[in-house]
Amino acid sequence: MERDNLNTAPFFTPVQTGLQEVETLLHAQADDAHPDLRAAVEHLLTSGGKRIRPAVGLLTGQMLGAPHDKLLTLAAAVEMLHTATLVHDDLIDGALLRRGMPTLNAHWSPAATILTGDYMFARAAKLAAESDNLLLMKLFADTLATIVNGELTQLFAARGVISRENYSKRIYAKTASLFEMTTHAAAMVSPAKPAVVETMRLFGYHLGMAFQIVDDILDFTGEQETVGKPVGSDLLQGLVTLPAIYYAEAHPYDPDVLCLTGGCYTEHERMERLVQSIRESDATAKSMKEAQDFTEKALEILKKAPASMERQALEDLTGYIVNRSI
Amino acid sequence: MERDNLNTAPFFTPVQTGLQEVETLLHAQADDAHPDLRAAVEHLLTSGGKRIRPAVGLLTGQMLGAPHDKLLTLAAAVEMLHTATLVHDDLIDGALLRRGMPTLNAHWSPAATILTGDYMFARAAKLAAESDNLLLMKLFADTLATIVNGELTQLFAARGVISRENYSKRIYAKTASLFEMTTHAAAMVSPAKPAVVETMRLFGYHLGMAFQIVDDILDFTGEQETVGKPVGSDLLQGLVTLPAIYYAEAHPYDPDVLCLTGGCYTEHERMERLVQSIRESDATAKSMKEAQDFTEKALEILKKAPASMERQALEDLTGYIVNRSI
Repeated sequence: MERDNLNTAPFFTPVQTGLQEVETLLHAQADDAHPDLRAAVEHLLTSGGKRIRPAVGLLTGQMLGAPHDKLLTLAAAVEMLHTATLVHDDLIDGALLRRGMPTLNAHWSPAATILTGDYMFARAAKLAAESDNLLLMKLFADTLATIVNGELTQLFAARGVISRENYSKRIYAKTASLFEMTTHAAAMVSPAKPAVVETMRLFGYHLGMAFQIVDDILDFTGEQETVGKPVGSDLLQGLVTLPAIYYAEAHPYDPDVLCLTGGCYTEHERMERLVQSIRESDATAKSMKEAQDFTEKALEILKKAPASMERQALEDLTGYIVNRSI
Repeated sequence: MERDNLNTAPFFTPVQTGLQEVETLLHAQADDAHPDLRAAVEHLLTSGGKRIRPAVGLLTGQMLGAPHDKLLTLAAAVEMLHTATLVHDDLIDGALLRRGMPTLNAHWSPAATILTGDYMFARAAKLAAESDNLLLMKLFADTLATIVNGELTQLFAARGVISRENYSKRIYAKTASLFEMTTHAAAMVSPAKPAVVETMRLFGYHLGMAFQIVDDILDFTGEQETVGKPVGSDLLQGLVTLPAIYYAEAHPYDPDVLCLTGGCYTEHERMERLVQSIRESDATAKSMKEAQDFTEKALEILKKAPASMERQALEDLTGYIVNRSI
C-alpha cells in the first residue's frame, strides 16, 4: 500500500520507467539460485522498501546524462546491498518486525538467513561490477565496509551513552554513506565534470543524514503499526538517538536520564517512561530542526546542479524526506 | 606448526616473498576497523590457513608474467573471501573446532561473527576491485554467489541422500569454484593468450575437485587432533561424501546404509559404526583413486603451460594435494 502511494509521488515521475526496470533487474538476480533461496529473495524484495535510494540514483544520473543501463545496474546494486544489510541486521537485532511484516528470520533458520544475506551481497557486488566502472566498484566495496564497521561499532558500543559524536558517526555509517555513494556513483558514470560529481556526493551525504535523523524521530513519534516496530525501540535497546540526546541535554537531572547514563536501559518500565517524556518534550521538534538543517544544506548544494525536471524531483524528494510519516 | 612446515615446502619457494607480501596485505585490511573487529580479523587470519589458494594464484600469474601487484591483491582477495566464507560456515555448522583451535564463534556472539564475516567480504571485494580488472571483479562476484548458493543448497538438501551428482555439484560450489577462479583470474591479469587462460582455469577446476575429495577422505581417515574435527563429522551430520558413496555402492544392504538412506543419520551410534565400516573398507582407497584421476588430469592440462620453475612448483603442489595428511 505504502509503496503504491509513494510510487505515484510526483518526484518519482521522471524515473517511473527506470524504477520498473530496476525491479525487473532485482528480481532477475535470484533466477539461477536454489528454489528456496529464490523464494526468500523474492519475499525480501517485494516486502517493502520505498526504493528511495534507486530513485535518488536514477534522478541524479538522468539529470547528468549518464547511460541508462549503467544507472539501472547501479540503482539495483544499491538497493540489493541495502536489502542485504537489512537481512543480517534483522537477524542481529532479533527484530521480528520490519515495515510491519514478519522479516525473513522469523520464518527461516538463522543459518539460511545468514546465507540469504550473503547471496544478496554477492549479487549486489555483481551488479556493481556490471557498471563497468572500477572507481564505482571500489566505492561500493568501501561503502559496504563502512556500513558493516558501523554496525559492529554499534554492537560493541556501551549502551546508554549520550554522545553527539557517536551519533553522527553512527548515522553516517548506517545510512548517509549509502546515500552518498548512490549520488556519487550515479554522477561518476555520467559525463559530468569532477566538481559536479563532488556536488552530487555532498548532496547525497546531506540527504542521507537527514533521512536517518527523521527515521530516529519517527521511532519516537510514529505509531507501531506504521513504523513497524515498538515506539522508542532504539532507546529500549540502550541506543541513544538524537531526540534522546536533546532531551538529556535539557533535563540532565531527570532520574530516568541519570539512570540511562548509569546503564539501566534494561529497566524496561523506566525506559518506557523516558520514551514518553521525550515524546511529550520539544526534543523531537529540535531534532526535526536539525534534520531540516541538513535538507536545507542539501537543497543549497543541489542548486549547483543543472536545472531540470530531475533536479526539481530531487528537490521534492528532499522535502518528502522530512515530511514523511514512515 | 603445520603452516611453518608447509611454508618450507619446495613448491612454495618461487612465491615465498609474494606470500609474505600477501600476509602483510591481508593484515592491513583491518587497519581502519573498530579495535575489536581488528582483533577478530587478526585472529582469523593468523589461526591457520595453509595459503594454498594464494600460492596457486601467485604461481600461475608469475608463470605467465602477470604484474606482481595485481597478483598480490588477487591472492589476498581470494584468501580473504575464503576466510570470510569459513567464518559464516563455522557459525552455521555450530562447529567449535576448525584446524584444531577454537573458531571465532566460540568466543564471540553470533551477531559479531556475522558482521565479522560481512566485513571480510567487503574487504575481499575491495581487494578484488584493486586488481583494476572488471572481468576479474565479475568473476569474483559470481564465485561468491556460487559458493553461497552451494552452501544454501547443502543446508536445504535432504540428509542421507546418496547421490554422485549432488556430491559433484557440492564440491564444485564449495571448493573447486574458488580454485578455478584463482587460476582463471591470475591468468586473466597476465598477458597470456585466451587459450592459456582457459587452460589455467581448467587446471584450477581439477585441482580444486581433487582438493575437496581428499578433504572428504581425511574426514574419515584423519585423526581428530590433526584434522581438527571429529572423525566422520560429515556423515554424523547426514552429509554423504565420496567415501560413503563408494561404501554404499559396494554394500547396498548393510543395515546402516539402509538406515542412512531412510533418514536415520541422527542415530549417532549407528552412524559411528558406519564411519568405522567405511574406514575399514576400500571406499577411501577408491575415493583416493578418483582424486588422483582429477590430479592426473590437472597435470596433463598443466603441460600446455610454459615450462618454468613455477610450473614445476604447481606440479609439486598438485602432488601434495593428494598426499597431504591435513
